Amino acid sequence: MPQISNKGQRIPASPIRKLAPYAEQAKREGKTVYHLNIGQPDIETPQVMLDAIKNISFKVWAYTPSEGILSFREKLAEYYNKLGYNIGPDNIIVTNGGSEGFIIATQSCLDAGDEIIVPEPFYANYNGFACMSDAIIKPVTASINNGFALPPISEFEKHITPKTKAIFICSPNNPTGYVYSRQELEDLKTLCLKYDLYLFSDEAYRDFCYDGQTFVSPMHLDGMDENVIIIDTVSKRYSACGARLGFLITKNKQILATALKFAQARLSAGLVEQIAGEAAIDTPASYFEHVKQEYTERRNILVEALNNMKGVYCPNPGGAFYVTARLPIDDADKFCQWMLETFSYDNKTVMMAPATGFYSTPGAGKDEVRLAYVLKQDDLKNAMACLEKALEEYPGRTVRNPELAVNTI
Amino acid sequence: MPQISNKGQRIPASPIRKLAPYAEQAKREGKTVYHLNIGQPDIETPQVMLDAIKNISFKVWAYTPSEGILSFREKLAEYYNKLGYNIGPDNIIVTNGGSEGFIIATQSCLDAGDEIIVPEPFYANYNGFACMSDAIIKPVTASINNGFALPPISEFEKHITPKTKAIFICSPNNPTGYVYSRQELEDLKTLCLKYDLYLFSDEAYRDFCYDGQTFVSPMHLDGMDENVIIIDTVSKRYSACGARLGFLITKNKQILATALKFAQARLSAGLVEQIAGEAAIDTPASYFEHVKQEYTERRNILVEALNNMKGVYCPNPGGAFYVTARLPIDDADKFCQWMLETFSYDNKTVMMAPATGFYSTPGAGKDEVRLAYVLKQDDLKNAMACLEKALEEYPGRTVRNPELAVNTI
Repeated sequence: MPQISNKGQRIPASPIRKLAPYAEQAKREGKTVYHLNIGQPDIETPQVMLDAIKNISFKVWAYTPSEGILSFREKLAEYYNKLGYNIGPDNIIVTNGGSEGFIIATQSCLDAGDEIIVPEPFYANYNGFACMSDAIIKPVTASINNGFALPPISEFEKHITPKTKAIFICSPNNPTGYVYSRQELEDLKTLCLKYDLYLFSDEAYRDFCYDGQTFVSPMHLDGMDENVIIIDTVSKRYSACGARLGFLITKNKQILATALKFAQARLSAGLVEQIAGEAAIDTPASYFEHVKQEYTERRNILVEALNNMKGVYCPNPGGAFYVTARLPIDDADKFCQWMLETFSYDNKTVMMAPATGFYSTPGAGKDEVRLAYVLKQDDLKNAMACLEKALEEYPGRTVRNPELAVNTI
Repeated sequence: MPQISNKGQRIPASPIRKLAPYAEQAKREGKTVYHLNIGQPDIETPQVMLDAIKNISFKVWAYTPSEGILSFREKLAEYYNKLGYNIGPDNIIVTNGGSEGFIIATQSCLDAGDEIIVPEPFYANYNGFACMSDAIIKPVTASINNGFALPPISEFEKHITPKTKAIFICSPNNPTGYVYSRQELEDLKTLCLKYDLYLFSDEAYRDFCYDGQTFVSPMHLDGMDENVIIIDTVSKRYSACGARLGFLITKNKQILATALKFAQARLSAGLVEQIAGEAAIDTPASYFEHVKQEYTERRNILVEALNNMKGVYCPNPGGAFYVTARLPIDDADKFCQWMLETFSYDNKTVMMAPATGFYSTPGAGKDEVRLAYVLKQDDLKNAMACLEKALEEYPGRTVRNPELAVNTI
């Protein structure tokens, strides 16, 4: 039998999805499973997008240009220019989801053995994108104790080698919710210019900043046009994760020309998605106000409930719709599986993503989980009641001794 | 400025799309351009598919499972089992187009430096898929003189090294239209089993066999379940190229498990596409009968017109909707560009794909072009009149001397 590839052996399973079979089994047993494992919001997609789908008038479901439909990219450029990005339609390549934007960008910039520095915990699928290019992720560990702020630049600098080609960031962050400050981005800029590095900026959660926090993009910084690649998506902004519509944005003409060749190799992004995406830009501001208000309330419920549980610590992040919390447990992977396989409270349980999958350093995040606040407030409250009960019952519960390693009771 | 990747420099531009700027310019100058360059049919998408889009009832455009919606895969399995594939829903991973099926399959099976043997001319985007894995294509040249039949297996065997991991085939073939016989596939099977190779079978054109020719898939052969990976797509079958919906199908469980990890890294295929794809399986047989009849007539028009032109030779292929023809020209790239940039007849011109991009051997296909018969019969006739005129006027016209190399007049 022929062998599968080394990278195919190396690519990790998704920490967000790998426990799905246990969730399916729990549901078959009649349990209610609260899905806090995945950033799939229950917020309704804007009506203008749904209407655009229903009103399609084409007779031939045809390819679009590989870089995306021009009228759509023109409207996107207007949208980004309102944010101060100062781009034209030629700076945008439309992709099959932000994921494909990442894949095309990494393929355009990175060869086998090239290194990417990423503050961890980070969005687990970066592992997959790096793996597809045989590139190597070098993590710089952020700490839950300061809410997962950007680690000191000196920590990044320690990892620089002749192979270092790029830094990946995500702000507001998945999985921590942390929003990088202008100063933090300026520090990254200095580093990127000093060592001639690409800065990949994952901006999937740009619209979700709370408590008056301001989103800052590397696109807002002067003098690094050749270094910055933005990855964006409609998935979270419009609660349209299943649209598979994203964007690669850069002012670097060489990357644009190279990315276009990779885009041509897969022909085009979806036609229906682009029609709906163009309509989505007309989504009224009230939609976002309502959504932001809702997420703020959900976050408050989650963070308060978590911090009220004995032995649990959860920072109060300023953005996205995730928190990464520390639990009094021996092993997040075991705990999350146990909650689906063994535990139930009032015939209900909670699915969470073990944080280990968001760290690249072996053993890191072993007592942390990522929770997505994508469910209705009452469901979140029920889920938190479940979690509290589960932590009481879990056989691997630990007492954290700040002076020592984690101890099992 | 940071450097782009080596593979980004290496990946070729699409021969199908690279001349698009010249076509755009010609249109701006008021010329009609007949697009025979790209496999984008003008055939209408089945009404059941369009209706499925218009009738969507979801309120949240959500992710689907990474492997695809179960009910869709169940229905697909039934469809494939009518063809004799003998598979279940678990043998199918739904992808963003056949292109992504190829990318995921190559990533799952091939590492940097691994070699793939491909009969040339071949679908140009295989270069891109190989490039993304840093794999190397080793071409085996088929000849226009026998209609691009499979080259002798001994020619394949000459290219086998310890690095050889896979063979890629496409039948009915893009760009030649040739349909592989059962014997040709049996010969490939013997080779794959002897050297433990994967056989990637691109079946995008399965439904388009003419003159009573029978489609045979490697799935129909016994004893090579672990070796065969089918790549399929709805693009051509339902004239739905812009749907970006394809399938990776295999009975090899290790590949399925590996491919699922790559599929998870990009989350899911599109929801609307899968809803429409499920509906498409109910397309009435009369749709395909009509379409096949239409393509047969178009092919006859094209092949007859081409062979009636002085110095032109075009085999009469049994499938797909392409022909690769030999023209009396010095350089297909120059000629195709000249037709868009300089030539017009009655203010019309033709866009074709230079065959050089479908060959991997340098210099091969220099006097060949690929034409897609995807336009209405009258348009095809007009396009052929244009091409005949263009060949008369083209300054790089050659006389072919069978004893010598091609000579410019």
